[in-house]
Amino acid sequence: MLDEFYIEELVKKKFPLKSASFPTGIGDDAAVFKIKSDKIVFSCDSQVEGVHFDLRFLTPEQLAFRALSVALSDLCAMGAKPRFFSNSLFLPRKTSKVFIDRLFKGFRNGCKYYDVDLIGGNVSKSESLALDVSVVGEVLNDRFKERNGSRVGDLIYVTGNIGDASLGLDLLKEKKRFTLKEKLIISKYKSPRAKVEIGLFLGQLEFLTSMIDITDGLSLDLRRLLGPISSRRGATLTWEDIPKTDCTLPPVSQNKLITSVMNGGDDYELLFTIKKKRAKHFEYLCKRNNFKVFRIGSVNSSATLSLIKGGRVRNLKPQGFVHKF
Amino acid sequence: MLDEFYIEELVKKKFPLKSASFPTGIGDDAAVFKIKSDKIVFSCDSQVEGVHFDLRFLTPEQLAFRALSVALSDLCAMGAKPRFFSNSLFLPRKTSKVFIDRLFKGFRNGCKYYDVDLIGGNVSKSESLALDVSVVGEVLNDRFKERNGSRVGDLIYVTGNIGDASLGLDLLKEKKRFTLKEKLIISKYKSPRAKVEIGLFLGQLEFLTSMIDITDGLSLDLRRLLGPISSRRGATLTWEDIPKTDCTLPPVSQNKLITSVMNGGDDYELLFTIKKKRAKHFEYLCKRNNFKVFRIGSVNSSATLSLIKGGRVRNLKPQGFVHKF
Repeated sequence: MLDEFYIEELVKKKFPLKSASFPTGIGDDAAVFKIKSDKIVFSCDSQVEGVHFDLRFLTPEQLAFRALSVALSDLCAMGAKPRFFSNSLFLPRKTSKVFIDRLFKGFRNGCKYYDVDLIGGNVSKSESLALDVSVVGEVLNDRFKERNGSRVGDLIYVTGNIGDASLGLDLLKEKKRFTLKEKLIISKYKSPRAKVEIGLFLGQLEFLTSMIDITDGLSLDLRRLLGPISSRRGATLTWEDIPKTDCTLPPVSQNKLITSVMNGGDDYELLFTIKKKRAKHFEYLCKRNNFKVFRIGSVNSSATLSLIKGGRVRNLKPQGFVHKF
Repeated sequence: MLDEFYIEELVKKKFPLKSASFPTGIGDDAAVFKIKSDKIVFSCDSQVEGVHFDLRFLTPEQLAFRALSVALSDLCAMGAKPRFFSNSLFLPRKTSKVFIDRLFKGFRNGCKYYDVDLIGGNVSKSESLALDVSVVGEVLNDRFKERNGSRVGDLIYVTGNIGDASLGLDLLKEKKRFTLKEKLIISKYKSPRAKVEIGLFLGQLEFLTSMIDITDGLSLDLRRLLGPISSRRGATLTWEDIPKTDCTLPPVSQNKLITSVMNGGDDYELLFTIKKKRAKHFEYLCKRNNFKVFRIGSVNSSATLSLIKGGRVRNLKPQGFVHKF
C-alpha cells in the first residue's frame, strides 16, 4: 500500500542531492536555497481533477509536467528566471504506487526541461486528486515586468497561437482519432511549455511596459493586463493579426474559433505591450534573436475592449475561465 | 455567489500594499520580494478537511491561523526567520462569502502575530476544503539547523509540553463542556504557535547539533531527527523528564497519556540535540533569555528508541501520524 514514506524515499532516490545552490537537499523540515539576486519571484498554481484536468486526457507524466509548466509560466510573465519548485500533492484513497512513480517521472522531466530543482513538497489524503505547485525564480539585472504598466498608444503583442489549447481540449472531448494537424493542436493543451527564454528576453526590455501570461482567455487576461476599468485603458485587437490555427480545419466552425481564441484558456503564451516608438526596433531585435512575436492590437483610452474583424468593429467582453463556488 | 474575483478584491483591500521588501504587492502573476540574506528557507504544508481538521472544532479564523502556524513551524525547526507566505485554497461548492471573510481574518491575524506578509495565493474549486500554505524565511548570520546532525552522547531537549494537542483533540471529540484546565489543553490543539523566537535563538547556537518540530508524534519525529536506522543512532528518553499535562487530570488514563505523549501529533514544539559538554552553558543561556527548555534524554548508538519509566526500560516504537492511501 502507498504511504507517505514511499513518496519520501522515491523523492530522495530520484531527485538531486545537495548542491551549491541547494545546500540542505530534499528531506528536511524546510529547504534552504541560495539565490544571488536580492529580488526573488514567487508564485503558486493548483490543478484539481475534474476542474483543471481530466485523467482520461492526460497521462500522470503529462499531468505533472503540465502542472509545473503552468506554475512556471507565471514567473515567465514577470520576465524572471525559474530556479526551484515544490509540489503539494492531494491524493485520493487507492492511489497506486505506479501512478506516483509516473507522476514523479513527469516532475523529473520538468526539472530537466526547465533546469529547475525540486526543493520540497507535501502529501495529504484528499477526496479529489489535486496538485499545488509553488515556484521560485530570480530577477536578472534588477529588471522584472508587471501587469498594469501600459500607456495609451502602446502596441499589444503575443508570443504564439491563441486558442489552440482550448480547441485541443474540445477535440479530445469530441473524438477518438485525430489527424496530424489535430494532434499538434491537442499537444498545445496536453503539453504547454512555459515561455522561459522569450520571457527572460522580454523581461530585460525597458520599452516593454506590461506583461502577463494567457491562462484564462485572451480577452480576460488582456483586461487584467490593462488594469481596472477605472484606469480608462482599453484596447482594440485585429482578428486577422491574432496568430491561431488554420481556421479551415474541420470540425471548427468560425464561431467556435472566435470563442476559443478570445475566451479559451490554457495557452500560456505571453501577452505584453511595447511603446509604439520602439516597436520597429523591438521587432528587429526579436527577428535577430529568433523569437517569434505577433502584433495584435493597441492600447487606447476607451476603457473597453473591441475586436476588428473583416473591417467591422465589435465589442469584446472580457470572458474566460473563472472559479465560481 | 462567491467567485475568485471576490477573493481577489478582498485580498487587495485587506492585505498590505507594496512595501520596500515586497515591491510588486499582491495581485500580479507572481510576487517579487526582497531578502537580504543570500540563503532563503522554504516550506509548504497542507491542511485537508476530514484529514487534518474538523470544522466542528475550529472556526474559520482558527483554521487559517493554524494552517499558517503549522507551516511556519517548519521554518522555526531550521532556526530561520519567517518573512512571507502564500495560501492556495481549495474550496467546495457553496463556500460562503462569510466563511472566506473569516478565513482571511485568520490569515490577517497570523500576519500581525508573526510579522509576515501574504505574497500570493490561488483559489480552486474542489470536492473537499483544503489549504496549502507555502512559507518563506531567511537565514540569519548564515546559520541554520538541520535534522540528522546529532552525535552519540548529545542530550535531547524539547521546548514545551508534549501530547497536549492530541489530548485536546480527544477531549473535543468526547465532551461538550470543559474545565479551565481542559480548555488550556484544547487551546494547544486549536491554536498552536510556531516557536519563532526560541527557534531563532536555537538556530544561532553552534553546539546545537540537530533540530526538528514535533508534528506527527514525539517518537516518530525523534526517529526522523536521529536519521535512518543505518546511522546506528538511537535514543533513550526518561518519561518523568518529558514535560506534559498534569496526568491526574480526568478522563486521561495513564495509557492514553503515554500514547498521546509518544505518538500524538500537532504539538509543534521543537525537538533538538545539544552537545553534552555544552549543556550546562546552554541551560544557563536559556534561563538568562527566559526560554523554557526541557532535557528529556540522550542519543546513543543502539539504533533503537527506549523509554525509561519508573526506573524500568521499555522499547519505544517510532509511531505517529502517517498518511496512507
